[in-house]
Parts: sequence; structure tokens; C-alpha cells
Amino acid sequence: MHTNRRKFITASVTGGLAAALPFTARSSGRLTEGLIDDKTGGAVPDYGKLDQAAAMPVFKKELFTSPVIIESLELLRLKDTFLCRVRSKDGAEGICVCNSLQMKSLYPIFVNRVQPFFIGKDARDLETIIEQLYVYGSNYKLQNLALWVPVASAEFAILDMMGRIAGKSIGELIGEIHNKQIAVYQANSERDITAEETIRQLKEQLAQSGAKAIKFKLGGRMNHPEYPAGRSEKLIPMVRKTFGDQMVISADANGSYGVEEAIKIGKIMQDYKYDFYEEPVPFDWYEETYQVAKALKIPVAGGEQEPSLHNFRWLIGNGALKVLQPDMFYFGGMVRSMKVARMARAMDKLCIPHITGDGFGYVYMMHFVSAIPNAGPFHEFKALSEDLPFQCKTSSLKSENGVVTVPSGPGLGVEIDPDYIKKHIVVKG
Amino acid sequence: MHTNRRKFITASVTGGLAAALPFTARSSGRLTEGLIDDKTGGAVPDYGKLDQAAAMPVFKKELFTSPVIIESLELLRLKDTFLCRVRSKDGAEGICVCNSLQMKSLYPIFVNRVQPFFIGKDARDLETIIEQLYVYGSNYKLQNLALWVPVASAEFAILDMMGRIAGKSIGELIGEIHNKQIAVYQANSERDITAEETIRQLKEQLAQSGAKAIKFKLGGRMNHPEYPAGRSEKLIPMVRKTFGDQMVISADANGSYGVEEAIKIGKIMQDYKYDFYEEPVPFDWYEETYQVAKALKIPVAGGEQEPSLHNFRWLIGNGALKVLQPDMFYFGGMVRSMKVARMARAMDKLCIPHITGDGFGYVYMMHFVSAIPNAGPFHEFKALSEDLPFQCKTSSLKSENGVVTVPSGPGLGVEIDPDYIKKHIVVKG
Repeated sequence: MHTNRRKFITASVTGGLAAALPFTARSSGRLTEGLIDDKTGGAVPDYGKLDQAAAMPVFKKELFTSPVIIESLELLRLKDTFLCRVRSKDGAEGICVCNSLQMKSLYPIFVNRVQPFFIGKDARDLETIIEQLYVYGSNYKLQNLALWVPVASAEFAILDMMGRIAGKSIGELIGEIHNKQIAVYQANSERDITAEETIRQLKEQLAQSGAKAIKFKLGGRMNHPEYPAGRSEKLIPMVRKTFGDQMVISADANGSYGVEEAIKIGKIMQDYKYDFYEEPVPFDWYEETYQVAKALKIPVAGGEQEPSLHNFRWLIGNGALKVLQPDMFYFGGMVRSMKVARMARAMDKLCIPHITGDGFGYVYMMHFVSAIPNAGPFHEFKALSEDLPFQCKTSSLKSENGVVTVPSGPGLGVEIDPDYIKKHIVVKG
Repeated sequence: MHTNRRKFITASVTGGLAAALPFTARSSGRLTEGLIDDKTGGAVPDYGKLDQAAAMPVFKKELFTSPVIIESLELLRLKDTFLCRVRSKDGAEGICVCNSLQMKSLYPIFVNRVQPFFIGKDARDLETIIEQLYVYGSNYKLQNLALWVPVASAEFAILDMMGRIAGKSIGELIGEIHNKQIAVYQANSERDITAEETIRQLKEQLAQSGAKAIKFKLGGRMNHPEYPAGRSEKLIPMVRKTFGDQMVISADANGSYGVEEAIKIGKIMQDYKYDFYEEPVPFDWYEETYQVAKALKIPVAGGEQEPSLHNFRWLIGNGALKVLQPDMFYFGGMVRSMKVARMARAMDKLCIPHITGDGFGYVYMMHFVSAIPNAGPFHEFKALSEDLPFQCKTSSLKSENGVVTVPSGPGLGVEIDPDYIKKHIVVKG
């Protein structure tokens, strides 16, 4: 943590993340210079290096000397809230608090397409199971959060169970511990409000979280015009002036722009020493993301909506993204996200995973961030659901002066009230 | 139809589809030559032309002089079979026979994320509704068949209703009628059987359908090794020798290969004058699809799994695909698929839509193919479900000597037994 904070200070003084890590800049400005394999210049991305990084095992199966056979994997429902519970033949148990906002529409995918494949398998083979599950029942046709949220729910429950068996935190099951404490940035998620109102809200939010970094929303989202018109161009300088030079500031366009407008806005962000620029163009505009990244010095961030490991490989290899943001649920869990983080690291890029505020998302994200060496200096903080009765002995799970402590396990490191779990019913197909 | 057959004969004699249409070949062999905007050569795709093609209205709202307000849009279920029923305030009604194999896992997406957005809207604004629905409730995060199958089901029901109001077939609502009859190819879907057994099955299938074209499966699917080993290399010449020079033959690798192997197999297909080469590499390997296409003369086909109109624009604009295969259900229906067909046409490429055998898929595909000028010479035939009681006065919906007649409407042109519909229950959230 303290290392990260020093990194941030250097970064904010000298121009943000771009200065904090040795990003390998390519500078000819050609649209696809990273891809060109000919005599005219340009370089082919070092895909070998990326493939090597992605192929390294993530889950530490060597911690387990005997099989852990999955006897049941259940989805539990209480109104619109979902839990996933796994049990082994030997009586071990793990729980995941699902992303219920999504699971509410995806539960038959869990029951029909995910659950059956896990039953009877050895949980130590988690990585292979997830790989095979992608082809099982032609699941690959559903490759996006529709498939990956159910898969992540199963994986998180299994990691909780395995952590409890081995006496390790989830982070310790998927890597070395690099971050026991995590500095957070304060995000403001509003659009369609004035620049002045955004400032007012950010001040109020900062007073609560004590964060040393800010993120706010630009543009109108997914190629739509913004309201009020001109809000972003006004807000970018105003946030810097209001919060001062030491504040680390980033902004998220959620795919608002075409290439030209994205570059124009990005240049204003550069002028005001912003830290990163999230989703300048729609997430499935690969070529255009690349074009925007090449035209700007400010690191472009993205990946929340990216469902494909192979496309992450392209985005990383070609330098279209410098800050990688796989969502812990949307991308299918820790094992798959770790492969993205490792590919990013191989190319000197950062990982700042995305998460939604629903359920325990933030706790899963903290465990993941604890285990990656190339985490960004600040991570999003989203308050935990207050409906959920739980105990955590090793962390308040709150932002204290802008810093959150990662629970130290075993497993998730959080105990959910057994009486609350009993109120749920098992979801059938 | 007869035009198409003549086209085929020319094609099969002179080397397949590649000879049938004026494909604009690029020949420098550079990995991304289509994308390069510099002084060193290569051309930028004419995206302006593609955008113009995609922006043209599809649904002929001018056929309707007064509003058609959607009063209800219901998903109906009988065991694992689904229908979608739309009703207008004025008492008009339309039915879609869903892709139930998928809907079985997607019905809450229909109920939570699609259905509410249609209620109270004017069905004449179908195109705008579908565009807005993509952003409604952040549905874009679910952009693949998980979202598009529910959307297509709604669209097909609405088109059926609108066709009945206007006295037009679905094809007449979305374009001019170019094909009243459709020649079919005989597909064999088996892997993991010997080359000899594949030949035996194809002979049996051809005896039934009378098709003048064949498609079969190559490789092991989605990067998996094939079984028996060497089956594809043996089968490619064997199919040509068995069925003779006049048979139009294509093959589908379902993403079996990496680039090198894909090119090797493609060259064998060229040697034996195959017509098109479907999904040589996994569907989300954009760069690699491009590389394979550039290294081969045989047209590369794909698009079944592509959920993004913007990525189709890239694939078409850069010549990565010469045969476009959006799936009528997986891609979200007729309006969206027509935009793909029109972009394909703007670049002299063919559209041969994909469909699964489930429900009435083939009937929807026939209506679509009836309305596109750049349909391929042969289309897949998949038998209709025998469980479904229906009447069609204008077509047997069967392959007769390799040709199927498109029902002439109104709407779908098929009447489903009202007593059968009554057995269904309305699906709730």
C-alpha cells in the first residue's frame, strides 16, 4: 500500500499513471502499427510473451494433497438476492454472494449450462473445468457476462471452500500477496446533472470516503449526446481547479464518443493532468480504441465489457489499453481475470479491475487486487449491501482515510449469518 | 432462383463463389493492409459506404398510415417450447415460434430486459425501438445471443403482426422480393466419425433432400484436436471425388484451427475447388480471421457468433469475411441482419444467414433470404420441428429437388394451431 501511495505521488506530480510505469510508447501514429509484419516499419506485438503469461497456472492446486470432489453446487434465492453454495463430498462448504442485479436474469444459465458441469469434479482442477465449460453445451455462443457471471459465482464459492480447507485467503490461492491494504478512488456515477452539481456531489462523497483520488462520468454514454451540452468540457478543468494538483483524477466516458471527439476530450484531460481515460469509444470498437490510444498520451482504460481473453490479448499486445479493467463477475472470476492481469504485466501495463456495487463485489475485487503485482495505485470503492448480515474479523470493509484493508481469510474472510442463508430457496431450472 | 442456379453452375466450373461475384481482392499479404492510413500503401476501408448502407431504413413503416400501439408482448411456454405473442391495442396479433433451445436459458432476459421496453410503443417505430433497447437498462452489457435471441423473438412476432395488418409477407416488410424460391445445401453436422462414415451419411441425406450443394464439418471445433486424427485432410478430397465436379462443396471448421493450420487446410480446399470455408479460427479471433482470409483465395465465411454490428462493419470493410452469416435469432432479427446484408452488398460480398434447426428458424431465414439481393446461391436447410401443429398454404416448407418455396404471407405465412397455442402458459419474471 505505501509503495502504491508513493507511486501515486510521483505519478500525480509528473503526469499520472503514464509516468508511474515504463509504458512502451509507439509513436509513428499509424492506425495499426502494432500489427504490421512487413518491411515498412512497425512491430508485431510479442504475443509469445503474452501467451506465456496467460498459460501460467493461477490456482494453487499444490496446496491440496487429496481430491475435493464437488457434491453439490446450488444457487440460492431470497426474493431478488442470490447466493451460490458449493459442498464437497467430505463436507466442506463455500459461499458466494452473487451479483444479483445480473443473476436475476441469468439464473437459468447457471442451472442449465454451468451447474451440471461441476458436479462430481475435483475442485482442484478448477482451471481446467472453467476452460472446458466454455465449450460444454456450446456455451461459447454465450460468451459475455451472461455466461461469465454464473461461472464467476461458482468459482467464488469454490475458492471460498478451498480457502477454508487450506487456511488461506482467496488471494493466497491465486497468487502472492502484494497488497494487504488498498487505496480507493471516489467515483461519482451521475450524468445529466450540471458540472456544478457534480462538483458538489464529489465534495460530499470525498468527505465521507477520505479518498485521495476521484473518478467521474463524461459524455452521454454509448454514443449518445450528453446533457447538459458542454458539461464535460466545462467539468474537466473545474474538477482539477476545485480539488487541486495533488488529487489524482480520472474520468469515464462509457463509450460516449467517436474517434475525433474522443481525442479532443482526451487532450483536455491531458492538459489538466488526468490519470486515465476510461472507455472513450464504445467497448466493441477495437480499432477505434487503438486509434484514440495512439493519438493520446493519457493512458486509455477499458475492459469492463470485454468477455474474450483473446481480445484482451489483442488490446494489451497492441497497446490499445494501458489500464486493464476486467470485471470480477462479468469476466468469469479470479482465474480468468488473473490471466488478463498477467498479460498486462508482461507489457508493463496496470490492472484496475471493475466491479459493480451489487452484493460482495468489492470484497472479491479486494482479494484479487491483493494478489496482483501490477495493481493500479487506486481502486474503485462501492459500498456493501446493508441488507446482508455478515461478520468480518480482519477488516471493517470500509474506507478509512481512503484505504480499505483486505480481509485475511480463510477463504473470503467474511462469515455470512447462517440463519440468513437458511431463508433462501434452491433455484431449479 | 433460376438466376441463382445459373450463378452456381458458373461458379462451380470456374472455382466457386469467388468467381461468382466481383470480390475486390487485396494482394499485398500484409496483416492489416486494409487498415493502414499512411503513405506506405494499403487502403482504408470505405467505412462511409458501409455506414451509408447500414443507415438506410429497413422496416417499411410507410406501409402503415396509423399507429399500431403494442398492448402486450408475451412469452408463452409449454414444457421447454416457447412462443412469443404480440397484441396491438386495435386487436391485431402476431406470433413468433422461438428458438427454444436458447430461450430455455434466456426467458428472464426476455421478461426483465426486453418485454417492458416494447409496451405502449408504436410498432411502426420498430427500428428505433431496437436501437434504444440496446442501451435501455444497460442491455449493451449483454450484447450477444443472450440479449439478441429475446429481441429477435419480439421482432419476429411484431413482423408477423404487421404483415397481417398490411397483407404483406415478412420479406416484403423489410425489402424487395428477390428470391421466391431458395436452393438449399445439404449439411452434415457430425464430428468424431470417420471420413467414410461422413460420406455414407452425406449420400443418405442427399437422397432425401435432392440438394445440389453440400457442407460438412472440419476439425475438432473451437481449437480442439479432431477425432479421428487426420479426418479433415482425408475427407476434403474424398468428398470431391465421391460427389463429382458439379457438386458445390463447402466446409465448416467451427473455429478449430490456429492461423497456420487454418491456411494449410484452406489450401487443400482450394485445390479441390471448395466454395467457402466457414470459421477457420475461433469467432472472436478477428485479426487471425483476417490473416487467414488474406492468405487464401477461397472465400472465408463467418458471423454466426458475431453479436456486434460494428464488428461486422470491420469484418466486411477489411475483407476478413466474404460470406456473411448472421444468425437470424442470435443476431437479433431481420432489421439488424439486413444491415449486415446491405453492408456486405456494398462491398460485393454475399450473405448466407445462419440458423439453428430449432422451431421455425428456417422459415424466418427464408423470408429474410427472399428479401436480399446478395443472397448466396445455396442456403442451409434444417427440418422443421414435427411437434408443432401448423398449416402453410403457399409452401410445403420442404426441400423438393433441392429447392424450397418461401411462404408468401401475410406475415410469416404459416398458421399455428390456436388450440396448441392455448396450451401454453404466460412466462412471468
